[in-house]
Amino acid sequence: MSEARISLPSIRRFPSYLRILMQVREQGEKSISATQLASELGLTSIQVRKDLASTGIEGKPKIGFSVEELIVAITHSLGWDNATEALIVGAGNLGSAIAAYNGFSAYGLKIVAIFDKDPKKIGTKVGHLTVLPVDTINQYIKSNRVTIAVVAVPANQAQATVDMLVKCGIRGIWNFASKNLKVPEDVVMQRTDLAASFAVLSVMLRRKYREETESDDDNDSY
Amino acid sequence: MSEARISLPSIRRFPSYLRILMQVREQGEKSISATQLASELGLTSIQVRKDLASTGIEGKPKIGFSVEELIVAITHSLGWDNATEALIVGAGNLGSAIAAYNGFSAYGLKIVAIFDKDPKKIGTKVGHLTVLPVDTINQYIKSNRVTIAVVAVPANQAQATVDMLVKCGIRGIWNFASKNLKVPEDVVMQRTDLAASFAVLSVMLRRKYREETESDDDNDSY
Repeated sequence: MSEARISLPSIRRFPSYLRILMQVREQGEKSISATQLASELGLTSIQVRKDLASTGIEGKPKIGFSVEELIVAITHSLGWDNATEALIVGAGNLGSAIAAYNGFSAYGLKIVAIFDKDPKKIGTKVGHLTVLPVDTINQYIKSNRVTIAVVAVPANQAQATVDMLVKCGIRGIWNFASKNLKVPEDVVMQRTDLAASFAVLSVMLRRKYREETESDDDNDSY
Repeated sequence: MSEARISLPSIRRFPSYLRILMQVREQGEKSISATQLASELGLTSIQVRKDLASTGIEGKPKIGFSVEELIVAITHSLGWDNATEALIVGAGNLGSAIAAYNGFSAYGLKIVAIFDKDPKKIGTKVGHLTVLPVDTINQYIKSNRVTIAVVAVPANQAQATVDMLVKCGIRGIWNFASKNLKVPEDVVMQRTDLAASFAVLSVMLRRKYREETESDDDNDSY
């Protein structure tokens, strides 16, 4: 299977290609050029040609790429042709927001259950899901053959949660907790740290502001 | 001001330090060692010492670092000692989830308003906010001196939205749209692309799975 060699930076761009391609297909277009994709996505057309080449789909001179062929190839490369079921651990603010967010379905991710250990949360509704007790998670994972878990627990519980999930058979973890976690080699973990992203934004903004005002006698109370 | 030289990787770790320090303070601890922080965060103690040195706070032999001093210094380095107000553009699934998420307040970010152009959304409640019409955003930004915007509009509207926000005086943009956007040099942009993160997780998981089963005659219907 050739997709095993597609680079991760290309993979990161694939969802954006897919989105443009689906829009274009809806508008009835059958083909698209690398230049057009590049301009839509703010990429260079060299980059786009390289990314598309990795799907195995070839463009035709003056016509471009088949929209349908690209959609099929990219969806398959991402594994999004089979809907993936995932569960969430942690029904706090972040877990609830993720559960209520419908946008994941666009990329083949279906949130099927949410778990918490807080008796006050168990049984309450989050989006269309009911919060389940975390001590039933092993049974749930085994019965429903779920392989992906979104971890949205407080940072100090994150490693214990991940250890428990791995023991239950979870193979892919999307970690939203602000903590470096350890997983065995056969488990894949992806981390999204919103606090870290916002920290960078805050600091960069302060630095810009300071650069601009440092010649002024302005006070520092930004 | 020394913090202008703190590296971005250190800045990205600061929120995690802050979280541990606040936990420790709540437990009544006055000091903490680099080793303790390192173990809590899954970092090396060399890394922790380097990060903490950049705050200007010095540890004492056998005692460690003052928890209070570190909290003050890190909070100040991040600019989180002054609450920052931000608005959201886009009251779709993602914008609504972000607006409803209370966790940002922990790092000095207060979402004060949410805007959309869809008449069906305007006037509806999202968390404790009422969706405002996007054509009032200029007035809002000027009256309330908001400098940060969270962009959660569909990708094909993202560049136009950002251009408009910059014109209204927004200086920091947290972009959740799956698109590379251009901003002038004096504007700071941070991107969080959930689809791209999930793409990497999906593909890595498929690759692991394939490695393990490629010697089997298993079918490919994962």
